[in-house]
Amino acid sequence: MQVLEYGPPISLVDAKQVIEAAEAEASANRWAMVIAVADSTGHIVALHRMDHAQFGSVPIAQAKALTAVNFKRPTKIFVEAVAQGGLGLRLLSTPGLCPLEGGIPLLRDDKVIGAIGISAARSTQDGQVALAGTKVIHG
Amino acid sequence: MQVLEYGPPISLVDAKQVIEAAEAEASANRWAMVIAVADSTGHIVALHRMDHAQFGSVPIAQAKALTAVNFKRPTKIFVEAVAQGGLGLRLLSTPGLCPLEGGIPLLRDDKVIGAIGISAARSTQDGQVALAGTKVIHG
Amino acid sequence: MQVLEYGPPISLVDAKQVIEAAEAEASANRWAMVIAVADSTGHIVALHRMDHAQFGSVPIAQAKALTAVNFKRPTKIFVEAVAQGGLGLRLLSTPGLCPLEGGIPLLRDDKVIGAIGISAARSTQDGQVALAGTKVIHG
Amino acid sequence: MQVLEYGPPISLVDAKQVIEAAEAEASANRWAMVIAVADSTGHIVALHRMDHAQFGSVPIAQAKALTAVNFKRPTKIFVEAVAQGGLGLRLLSTPGLCPLEGGIPLLRDDKVIGAIGISAARSTQDGQVALAGTKVIHG
Repeated sequence: MQVLEYGPPISLVDAKQVIEAAEAEASANRWAMVIAVADSTGHIVALHRMDHAQFGSVPIAQAKALTAVNFKRPTKIFVEAVAQGGLGLRLLSTPGLCPLEGGIPLLRDDKVIGAIGISAARSTQDGQVALAGTKVIHG
Repeated sequence: MQVLEYGPPISLVDAKQVIEAAEAEASANRWAMVIAVADSTGHIVALHRMDHAQFGSVPIAQAKALTAVNFKRPTKIFVEAVAQGGLGLRLLSTPGLCPLEGGIPLLRDDKVIGAIGISAARSTQDGQVALAGTKVIHG
Repeated sequence: MQVLEYGPPISLVDAKQVIEAAEAEASANRWAMVIAVADSTGHIVALHRMDHAQFGSVPIAQAKALTAVNFKRPTKIFVEAVAQGGLGLRLLSTPGLCPLEGGIPLLRDDKVIGAIGISAARSTQDGQVALAGTKVIHG
Repeated sequence: MQVLEYGPPISLVDAKQVIEAAEAEASANRWAMVIAVADSTGHIVALHRMDHAQFGSVPIAQAKALTAVNFKRPTKIFVEAVAQGGLGLRLLSTPGLCPLEGGIPLLRDDKVIGAIGISAARSTQDGQVALAGTKVIHG
């Protein structure tokens, strides 16, 4: 197994572009979302709460972005594990792990430079907006 | 999807009436409950603990009211999602979300002005008393 | 030294009257305050946040009421100890102790039945309103 | 005493401009800062961490912005009270109050619509950058 490495942290300039792309996708769908970007060190770089977004989404968006960095993978993987029940349920009390769709790592040169986390609408919508944000980095 | 907006915060005068109605419903059933009202900013406006109510219900009533404001919906929705198992279980580790029946948003002019949270008895009883409180605002 | 004992917990009916008296004093001075009453078990019985009161006063009013119960004395005593410096400063990191004026025990038959905590205005004003509330019990 | 009221929450568009102005001031001085904007409900609207800013400044910038909203005043007031010693030291254990310079309320039509919080450099530098951000709203 090849270990996915942490790369240099995403810059604020790049993080803003990621957020801008996600915000555009959310606006196009009239979704009021919270958008967070964490860097490869596991700290928040930027966060925007769109007007009328529910307060509850502020910590959730951050948790999704941090989970994607902390575990170097999309949070959707954890949602699926929980949905299978049994052993998968242990993820519900794993420290630092938020098992909700909408967190996706940002990669450059095959290394994790950060992650985006989205919260507000249905989980598939959160995932859709997160994906839109990643395209700034992944093309 | 139309976004439900936060409106102006419920006044203390209105919050007292909401609590009074809920307290009357609880008293009529001889239930010793904790009744909390949060406003549209996500802060507690008023809280009453009825005599003999269990201590554990103080933070729970507050958590239900805040969850209803933070996510702009009745907490019962989350209870049902959890009860379905599978994917629904992910709500058990959603930051700031209390998946217990008894929290209901208070709406005026189609905007969230606050929420009521009830704790003490069975969950359907908590829901019944919360509903009684909302009638002061919703008619 | 005679030990001040904890008595039976203040009832919600009494707590409401304490709050009403404090609220009247605050209103008369046009102060927007948070008023909390704890009982003799160290749990909040009732809390009212007046319209336009600062959010920061919600946890502070509770902390003052709980401090007065937890240590069976007016919080002002701790303020004065802190003000003297030296040894007094250790109170700044004493668990469960909030060294701010505005918390006063409620006594009946020489026993602590609860306490009132006020927050919002200058500390002497907080003390003044707390005192107004205690008169319901102390006469 | 006239009570300063909370007004409608600052919009994300306005918050971005406040952050942009603060970021420009920080960049001009080559200070790597964290800039947070909270709204009048006491929730974060936007946060930017400039490249190379210390991790520790992320929670501090948020705490300063929230303190300025929760207490409707610049955090510098609390710094000065602490600096005077004696009674002022009690602020060191006031729940939810961060007594560090760099948090300033944002006012519109004489109401609090939010606050800016800056952290990273010396406290006077934090204050300088926070002030630069407020000019977008205050002119």
